[in-house]
Amino acid sequence: MSSVSELDFVERVRASFGRQNAMALIQANLADVQQGLVEIHLPHWHGVEQQHGFVHGGVVGMIADSAAGYAAMTMTPDDASVLSVEFKLNLMAPADGEMLVARGKVVRPGRTLIVTQAEVFAVREGNETLCALMQQTIMVMHGKPER
Amino acid sequence: MSSVSELDFVERVRASFGRQNAMALIQANLADVQQGLVEIHLPHWHGVEQQHGFVHGGVVGMIADSAAGYAAMTMTPDDASVLSVEFKLNLMAPADGEMLVARGKVVRPGRTLIVTQAEVFAVREGNETLCALMQQTIMVMHGKPER
Amino acid sequence: MSSVSELDFVERVRASFGRQNAMALIQANLADVQQGLVEIHLPHWHGVEQQHGFVHGGVVGMIADSAAGYAAMTMTPDDASVLSVEFKLNLMAPADGEMLVARGKVVRPGRTLIVTQAEVFAVREGNETLCALMQQTIMVMHGKPER
Amino acid sequence: MSSVSELDFVERVRASFGRQNAMALIQANLADVQQGLVEIHLPHWHGVEQQHGFVHGGVVGMIADSAAGYAAMTMTPDDASVLSVEFKLNLMAPADGEMLVARGKVVRPGRTLIVTQAEVFAVREGNETLCALMQQTIMVMHGKPER
Repeated sequence: MSSVSELDFVERVRASFGRQNAMALIQANLADVQQGLVEIHLPHWHGVEQQHGFVHGGVVGMIADSAAGYAAMTMTPDDASVLSVEFKLNLMAPADGEMLVARGKVVRPGRTLIVTQAEVFAVREGNETLCALMQQTIMVMHGKPER
Repeated sequence: MSSVSELDFVERVRASFGRQNAMALIQANLADVQQGLVEIHLPHWHGVEQQHGFVHGGVVGMIADSAAGYAAMTMTPDDASVLSVEFKLNLMAPADGEMLVARGKVVRPGRTLIVTQAEVFAVREGNETLCALMQQTIMVMHGKPER
Repeated sequence: MSSVSELDFVERVRASFGRQNAMALIQANLADVQQGLVEIHLPHWHGVEQQHGFVHGGVVGMIADSAAGYAAMTMTPDDASVLSVEFKLNLMAPADGEMLVARGKVVRPGRTLIVTQAEVFAVREGNETLCALMQQTIMVMHGKPER
Repeated sequence: MSSVSELDFVERVRASFGRQNAMALIQANLADVQQGLVEIHLPHWHGVEQQHGFVHGGVVGMIADSAAGYAAMTMTPDDASVLSVEFKLNLMAPADGEMLVARGKVVRPGRTLIVTQAEVFAVREGNETLCALMQQTIMVMHGKPER
């Protein structure tokens, strides 16, 4: 893969992420974009908490869904956009820590459908604890660029 | 079921919802609480949008997860709390409208595990369009009241 | 819908089911085919049991997956075939009884993707107990008839 | 871990597998049992096929569900049994080959709930192709040994 097209997918993902108001609302940021791999960070702040002071499971789902969806976008042509068809999330431990890290990766790229996974880790004093696991199906909309 | 205990579960659900900062952040409100049925409303506002101006799929998941989880809570004893073990969400149509309505219901109540479903509708000029469907597993933590 | 095309989809579903060796292996039969609704019956016999004498969860998944997939097929054109992209199954009670009944239905028909649900009931002396619930995504392959 | 208890879990898994008539029906065999990892093989034969001559998606689900469930059983005490609460399966490529290999592994062991994954590969002339991916929730029934 040429460095030009690599710049292309990084640029496309960053531009799309920047247009997601919901990511700004929860204060998520795009930490890393590689081909087939995207990482999103979420600081633990009071606005994203559920009733016990942990990060809300739905917010964990938001960053997992986005990280994996953008991982899929790194594998699609410039003139395509991606759509989250469905995802399944297991919440395995309280999302407790200073920060959450969601790592999305492509498991199987297809022309029309892309299957992805995401892991979400709670980070406390540099130690990561796996707190959620997601499996997702993405649809590629050819001829419908993101913008 | 006596009206006293009915007041109890309505009260418990409302108190717990009120402590979820993440629900306030997205401006979701608890519209209805009945035994086995909970409805959450989300106005469409710019803060919850994804890159195409629809409500973010992860936000759709948040209200679906919460509506169904609270539906489960209406079936548990006072001294128990509920935990979302996992959920699976199909996004079927753009979450486009003036408001989203998430309706969670209990499919099978068990002592330890409760299976639920939620439907999310986009409301436009009074017409509802089904835009998401969720299936969820809830764990009941006996002897651990919400507060 | 004309009776001719109705015959068409019933015929297509029955022909496809008849070619599924795996359905014959477990002794499943196609009990009903209507537009958007398909019912499969499975007698309880020793060959489909797991270690506790109930029907194996994977076999429950087989009839749920097939019932819902064929429900999707009733909504597609003659020159299309259907593919099960993914399904999620909750096993809620032991699959115990003289017979299992799987009822698949279309929740949202789309041109490329169809979202379906299936319920599986254990039947004992005429009483049905819900033992499994499934949510599924089907892909429509246009221009690729079943045969 | 002592070799005695290792023998224990291998023995428990093999004994339970041997009592699953449904595994014998589809001609699946237990190829490997390690702590947290179980492998099931399925020869491709006519009885497990769907209408296009590939292995039925539901049969793929059966071996994935079993491999991951038995992986969970390797992590539980002798006096406990395991129950498949739910699983979600993505079918990513036709299950085509001389044999299928399902590899189940434990992602997060808990006292009451265990989260697992399974991958299913189609093997053709020694080459493996990933054809399915599963995420599963297992419940541990303490004080209820398998037999």
